[in-house]
Amino acid sequence: MMDYNVPGGKLNRGLSVIDSYMLLREGTEVDDEDFYLACVLGWCIEWLQASALVLDDITDNAYTRRDNLCWYKLPTVGLSAINDGVLLKCHVQAIIKRYFKEKFYFVDLMELWNEIGLQTAMGQMLDLITTHTGAKDLARYRIQGYRRIVKYKTSYYSFYLPVACALLLNGAKLSDYVELKNVLIEMGVYFQIQDDYLDCFGDPQVIGKVGTDIEDYKCSWLIVQAMELANENEMKILYENYGKSSPECVSAVKNVYKELDLQDIFLEYESRVYKHLVSTIDAEPDRAIREILKIFLKKIYRRKK
Amino acid sequence: MMDYNVPGGKLNRGLSVIDSYMLLREGTEVDDEDFYLACVLGWCIEWLQASALVLDDITDNAYTRRDNLCWYKLPTVGLSAINDGVLLKCHVQAIIKRYFKEKFYFVDLMELWNEIGLQTAMGQMLDLITTHTGAKDLARYRIQGYRRIVKYKTSYYSFYLPVACALLLNGAKLSDYVELKNVLIEMGVYFQIQDDYLDCFGDPQVIGKVGTDIEDYKCSWLIVQAMELANENEMKILYENYGKSSPECVSAVKNVYKELDLQDIFLEYESRVYKHLVSTIDAEPDRAIREILKIFLKKIYRRKK
Repeated sequence: MMDYNVPGGKLNRGLSVIDSYMLLREGTEVDDEDFYLACVLGWCIEWLQASALVLDDITDNAYTRRDNLCWYKLPTVGLSAINDGVLLKCHVQAIIKRYFKEKFYFVDLMELWNEIGLQTAMGQMLDLITTHTGAKDLARYRIQGYRRIVKYKTSYYSFYLPVACALLLNGAKLSDYVELKNVLIEMGVYFQIQDDYLDCFGDPQVIGKVGTDIEDYKCSWLIVQAMELANENEMKILYENYGKSSPECVSAVKNVYKELDLQDIFLEYESRVYKHLVSTIDAEPDRAIREILKIFLKKIYRRKK
Repeated sequence: MMDYNVPGGKLNRGLSVIDSYMLLREGTEVDDEDFYLACVLGWCIEWLQASALVLDDITDNAYTRRDNLCWYKLPTVGLSAINDGVLLKCHVQAIIKRYFKEKFYFVDLMELWNEIGLQTAMGQMLDLITTHTGAKDLARYRIQGYRRIVKYKTSYYSFYLPVACALLLNGAKLSDYVELKNVLIEMGVYFQIQDDYLDCFGDPQVIGKVGTDIEDYKCSWLIVQAMELANENEMKILYENYGKSSPECVSAVKNVYKELDLQDIFLEYESRVYKHLVSTIDAEPDRAIREILKIFLKKIYRRKK
């Protein structure tokens, strides 16, 4: 179960722990044990991610994941996959106990993971509830609700968690890094907006999947923008075609997106958020933190997959 | 979601925390705060239980729970219930942090809950895997495998956890109570055997559900006994009818159970295990512990629901 679900991702989140930790330690020698512990926490994020993917794939009735059949789709697995998802999450606590029990930051580490586990589950809940109400009335998809979902569902665990782990490993107190957290969460929102954009306008060959956000009635950044900008006729087309699986309906929605120049609006958003992030990062006094943020930003800016 | 899933059970587990704690404190005055904290931990068990039930009902394709429709069966819920189950479990850590952060036993409490969460998920995994192999060959259902499942899946969280919580609240070290743990686990196995018995022979009006262990191919104590006692013909009937949902198949299995006098065998087991537990309890030197164990035993002995 672990072999099937834990490895095989891009490892972005896990590697971010190590990259961030090495930057925090710049100028000091990192011994094998310290490096190993950074790897352990990196893998913990991959474990948490695996847990979320196993469960979300069941909820979303997904078919493939990372070019393989979803775990729950295997004939010998089925809905036992629910418990496997729970088990993968339990492993995180067990791994942390095994490697960090004697560290002075052990309690902080446990609490960090508990808190982020809760935030991620709350984000998933918001997403599911929003999709449900949105399916009744598309007008319920608004940018504030969108940002709240993404912040909780994605940003905390994908962007804040890796850096927070590196900080704790380095002996820091997380309460000294509230501003850093906000920047990372902002980057997470940017990352998800790219994801939503690529789901519709990206190259399936490059992103490795065929997007289905329109069919799935997703509260995507694109539909949120479209609902703000559409005229009466376009609005009517969106209401009639969003959330339906027929290729004609999907095309009708995509045509409205194109009429509304959502591709340009995305590019404008991207350069605006990029400038804002760059200036925030430049104002950060701590050199290592600045470097960490720059590397994150570099990884995602104008990404095509 | 919480209102639907957390209250409404028998509260046996939650109340056990309070009962156990009051017995440990006998002779000393328990102030409101201490009592409140025992209630908090009691509710945490009910929250954990709610999480497990929400998820297991999906896995088992159950229809009713505590006289209501299963949560995931509500039209507005569906498979979002998976995330709700995860969320309920996250709440436990959040509640513990909120009320116990400043206590000297905070870390022990977190670790206790993490450990028991893991054991319970592993028990559920063993159960699912066993059911899978059992479905290929009923003869794989044996008493040792059965006991291992029950120990992990039920005993730790239903029997050991309430008492362990009371001990920690009282300032004890859990490593001093290994023998107590073993007795509680034995009681948990007894409790589950009753559950399996009632699933088939209990009154649905009284137990609040219609049992489906036979249909679901469950590794129930009854089938384990039956596989040990059946003659060639009865064995054939079991092989042909166990794990099938038609009422005729279920009746055929129940008839074999009756032919084999499983009702009497259960009563014999019950009085044997009762005697054994009573003598173990009598040998316990600590008066408060003895009382705790007696109350547990009294609650479950010859229960009808």
